[in-house]
Amino acid sequence: MTVNYQLIVSSVSAGTFFRLLFRWRGSIWKSVITELSIWLVCYYLIFFCYRFLATASFQTFLEHLMNHMDDRLKYIPLTFMLGFFVTTVFERWRAIMTALPFIESVAISTSMLVPGLTEEARLIRRAIIRYVVLSQVLVFRDISMRVRRRFPNILSLVEAGFLEESELDDLEAVHARPGNRYWVPMNWANSIILEAHQNKIIDQPTAFNNLILALKEFRISLETLCKYDWIPIPIAYPQVVFLAVRVYFCCVSF
Amino acid sequence: MTVNYQLIVSSVSAGTFFRLLFRWRGSIWKSVITELSIWLVCYYLIFFCYRFLATASFQTFLEHLMNHMDDRLKYIPLTFMLGFFVTTVFERWRAIMTALPFIESVAISTSMLVPGLTEEARLIRRAIIRYVVLSQVLVFRDISMRVRRRFPNILSLVEAGFLEESELDDLEAVHARPGNRYWVPMNWANSIILEAHQNKIIDQPTAFNNLILALKEFRISLETLCKYDWIPIPIAYPQVVFLAVRVYFCCVSF
Amino acid sequence: MTVNYQLIVSSVSAGTFFRLLFRWRGSIWKSVITELSIWLVCYYLIFFCYRFLATASFQTFLEHLMNHMDDRLKYIPLTFMLGFFVTTVFERWRAIMTALPFIESVAISTSMLVPGLTEEARLIRRAIIRYVVLSQVLVFRDISMRVRRRFPNILSLVEAGFLEESELDDLEAVHARPGNRYWVPMNWANSIILEAHQNKIIDQPTAFNNLILALKEFRISLETLCKYDWIPIPIAYPQVVFLAVRVYFCCVSF
Amino acid sequence: MTVNYQLIVSSVSAGTFFRLLFRWRGSIWKSVITELSIWLVCYYLIFFCYRFLATASFQTFLEHLMNHMDDRLKYIPLTFMLGFFVTTVFERWRAIMTALPFIESVAISTSMLVPGLTEEARLIRRAIIRYVVLSQVLVFRDISMRVRRRFPNILSLVEAGFLEESELDDLEAVHARPGNRYWVPMNWANSIILEAHQNKIIDQPTAFNNLILALKEFRISLETLCKYDWIPIPIAYPQVVFLAVRVYFCCVSF
Amino acid sequence: MTVNYQLIVSSVSAGTFFRLLFRWRGSIWKSVITELSIWLVCYYLIFFCYRFLATASFQTFLEHLMNHMDDRLKYIPLTFMLGFFVTTVFERWRAIMTALPFIESVAISTSMLVPGLTEEARLIRRAIIRYVVLSQVLVFRDISMRVRRRFPNILSLVEAGFLEESELDDLEAVHARPGNRYWVPMNWANSIILEAHQNKIIDQPTAFNNLILALKEFRISLETLCKYDWIPIPIAYPQVVFLAVRVYFCCVSF
Repeated sequence: MTVNYQLIVSSVSAGTFFRLLFRWRGSIWKSVITELSIWLVCYYLIFFCYRFLATASFQTFLEHLMNHMDDRLKYIPLTFMLGFFVTTVFERWRAIMTALPFIESVAISTSMLVPGLTEEARLIRRAIIRYVVLSQVLVFRDISMRVRRRFPNILSLVEAGFLEESELDDLEAVHARPGNRYWVPMNWANSIILEAHQNKIIDQPTAFNNLILALKEFRISLETLCKYDWIPIPIAYPQVVFLAVRVYFCCVSF
Repeated sequence: MTVNYQLIVSSVSAGTFFRLLFRWRGSIWKSVITELSIWLVCYYLIFFCYRFLATASFQTFLEHLMNHMDDRLKYIPLTFMLGFFVTTVFERWRAIMTALPFIESVAISTSMLVPGLTEEARLIRRAIIRYVVLSQVLVFRDISMRVRRRFPNILSLVEAGFLEESELDDLEAVHARPGNRYWVPMNWANSIILEAHQNKIIDQPTAFNNLILALKEFRISLETLCKYDWIPIPIAYPQVVFLAVRVYFCCVSF
Repeated sequence: MTVNYQLIVSSVSAGTFFRLLFRWRGSIWKSVITELSIWLVCYYLIFFCYRFLATASFQTFLEHLMNHMDDRLKYIPLTFMLGFFVTTVFERWRAIMTALPFIESVAISTSMLVPGLTEEARLIRRAIIRYVVLSQVLVFRDISMRVRRRFPNILSLVEAGFLEESELDDLEAVHARPGNRYWVPMNWANSIILEAHQNKIIDQPTAFNNLILALKEFRISLETLCKYDWIPIPIAYPQVVFLAVRVYFCCVSF
Repeated sequence: MTVNYQLIVSSVSAGTFFRLLFRWRGSIWKSVITELSIWLVCYYLIFFCYRFLATASFQTFLEHLMNHMDDRLKYIPLTFMLGFFVTTVFERWRAIMTALPFIESVAISTSMLVPGLTEEARLIRRAIIRYVVLSQVLVFRDISMRVRRRFPNILSLVEAGFLEESELDDLEAVHARPGNRYWVPMNWANSIILEAHQNKIIDQPTAFNNLILALKEFRISLETLCKYDWIPIPIAYPQVVFLAVRVYFCCVSF
Repeated sequence: MTVNYQLIVSSVSAGTFFRLLFRWRGSIWKSVITELSIWLVCYYLIFFCYRFLATASFQTFLEHLMNHMDDRLKYIPLTFMLGFFVTTVFERWRAIMTALPFIESVAISTSMLVPGLTEEARLIRRAIIRYVVLSQVLVFRDISMRVRRRFPNILSLVEAGFLEESELDDLEAVHARPGNRYWVPMNWANSIILEAHQNKIIDQPTAFNNLILALKEFRISLETLCKYDWIPIPIAYPQVVFLAVRVYFCCVSF
């Protein structure tokens, strides 16, 4: 979910900073509100106990504990761990962003390399794009919660016009894990291109070649997205980081 | 806005450093002047109060506060946050710089692959370049404030000769978000190339292929620029950094 | 071994953290359990000795040792060493992940560029894919323990249907280090494509060309994986890091 | 200016280190000699004053100043700033090094794809290479001081044989900023290739295509070099770093 | 020199660590043994003097010196310098590793695109590979000490069968710096391919094109290796690092 805030930034002024700081959607506040609350409650609870309830001897004990905690804090290389983790996560985000394919590339190639004003040529162009977008939707349904909510099942794709009913059966007939169905529409698009080439609608080998490569490029982008979705950061990393951060805050709260 | 300062640097001498340091345009001074002033005023206000106005007991309180602040400062991993943020911003800057397309590549390909001294060939070459540059201008208008100021509306493009009036209607007839109009002139350029190929002005399939790829490359560069414009750094990052920096300076000012 | 934990993460809630933290398979706990136990035992042994067994003079000596150790700890730039090492290891992991080839790319190209519904065309398509996957299996057997366990010897490949018995002899007839046999099936696949091209089953040079490039791409990916397998991080690096970490923990345990 | 020192390093021995350390050309000593001298003089001046000239009360004041300075030093995150700056500069250096094009690639392609032992073919091959190298020289004259000194004006290019006199007029006839003249010889080379193709000296479209791409690749490399030359690191970065370093040394000198 | 240690690592157990730690070849111990010895001797010499020989006043002086040294140590940002240097060196190592070309790619392309069972076709295939490998050997002789020792002069290449005697004269007839002779065999390979194409042994333009590109790719990889060999890290960097490390250890030894 990308939240745009550039319109605010583009008019730089003193107030900008505060307007930016108190944006809620997708903001830092929204992410940490639960944990921040818990920590603040704990902190003031301990603080309150220490000041008003504790006996003198217990206060001394707490002070010792505090110093001890403070001392041991430096053994947790939090900065290093977080730095590594944040960089890794950000790097993945950037890689995914760069891999996001746009249909325009395929669309322009298609409109160009499948020329002709006949009804047939028009239908071919439309079918190719429809199949490629269908592949994209199938992939995105498994990656993004938002696309999944928009298309909760395969039937909703038929309703939205991405898939014809006859094709639905063909798609379901593929006995494969769902992940392997992604490329079925891609294959259909390729078949149409091949047929069009054999019927001399795409009459040059180079044009044929070019169109295939455009589709391949698009598919590789989708495949990269899948790879990032299938292979998360090894679980040991987030475990170490989460643990370190929580222990750190426990120590700090004293 | 790129401010050149290399002419100064190339003649390295002792004075260079100072000449460089006091450049105003695009400099560090210009960026921080407002906030630096505010902070300096606050700092000296507190300093003045502490020295001359405060009573002894209040001075003691302030000193405690100072020590406390100083102590707590180390819990803000400012270096790490800034390091991450600055690197990220710089990396984006570098990526955008690398993606900036130049028209020369397309121009040389066009002049080469659409040969012929006839008026017709000349017009085709000119139209292709004009359409490609038009695409570039349309994209840059939405990215750069300076290009936007130069071309505040579509009509100014007609005046500047990038667009003919008849084409303006075609462009406006595309019912799409403005972002989707970027590639309309690109499509026109492709159509001209296709037509020229069918009329045997571009007589070889490889030449045709080559020219299409040159245009595609240019379009991909523009698309990359758009991607960077559309998808900012997640808002949580600048929020955290801005907050940390301000809190840090508040603490330091004591 | 990729352990998926995204299903848990996708439903973010307060309990998520704990569920994630105590996953065992592929987790941080599993990796460090032995060494953590040893260190804990040592730590409490020393602690116990210090508290209850040691004489006063020995206690003083231990305290001196502790302070001395604590002091010297700062000369071990552990954060820097670990940072460098972890980044390097992670970078390799990422590079390998990115290089992992999927057969889909070759499969779609094959189904497209070797058209025809005849039995012959079908057999050719099947043989190409079989040979390419065979190459992949041969490489993966030497990289991954899991694939090796699944296919402990060449005969098991015959049983699994990747290799025909007659081909097994051809493969064994290649007098070369095992590493050089990886590409023999790749070569067979190429031969089939060449023959199909000469028999006009693949009738266009561009299609022929395209198919060769798809196979080449796949082979390059496998070669990259081999490179990472053959050339480990220079042994001096892990030695330095392992030594530093152990010495560090020895010091800390006091 | 690349100063080779690998011959020394390749014979590793105890003395190597010192031989390497006291190399003068392109060394660290040469770069910092002026500023190091100034700083040393200042340091010993202050040191001398403090020890022998100052009165006791002034000494106390200086000591306070020293402690204060020392204290405030930690607020300058010098390591972080320098780290970022040095990495950035080095990254640019590496990118430029990688982009440096060699003529061999174009030369081998030309000798291969423009076959023929006739005088005509020989002249064509020679002209293509001459024009491409001329483009390179034109670019390098504006980037490198050394090439500029070797070719202080366009006429010196004629003397060196890169440019014929008739061509000089053509080059000067291009009414454009000097930066835009870079690609004029490139265009000439392309024209020759086109003509050779039309005269059937380069008789295959693929060979023609191949040669064009080789030239394009070379031009893109040069363009990348220009980009790095035109767009320096935003001036705010060096300003911050220079300022921080100088202030730091001022503080340290006490 | 790559020293494999993965066989040891793959059987992870408690003893692994020690087995790994005391590997000698290519290890950290081998690299630092001389300097470590010198430093240890110095350290214990100073330590011994301080404890048993020095007078009380000299001891006090030494203690002051020690504290002073310890204090000044923090002004040497060793971690930062080393971090930058190690990363740079490692990055070069990785880039070189990635650029290492394997002959398989060219070999498979050749066996595929120069078909035919005639003696002539067989000789052509063999000659192409021989020339390409010869280029590789010529480059590697100037980069790697091990290859140089194996082939101390050009004649040893003739003995090993990489070069025929008649070709030796042709190679020596090229009046050029040795570096420029690298690509002479590459050129010969290209000539053979061209001839084979004109004699219709390679009968399709795309196959011809494909083969040329395979050779080009190989040559570019070798060129990249040369670049890294010719252009070392600017000498100022190792000077700074070596100096800092030695000064640091001098200080620490007190």
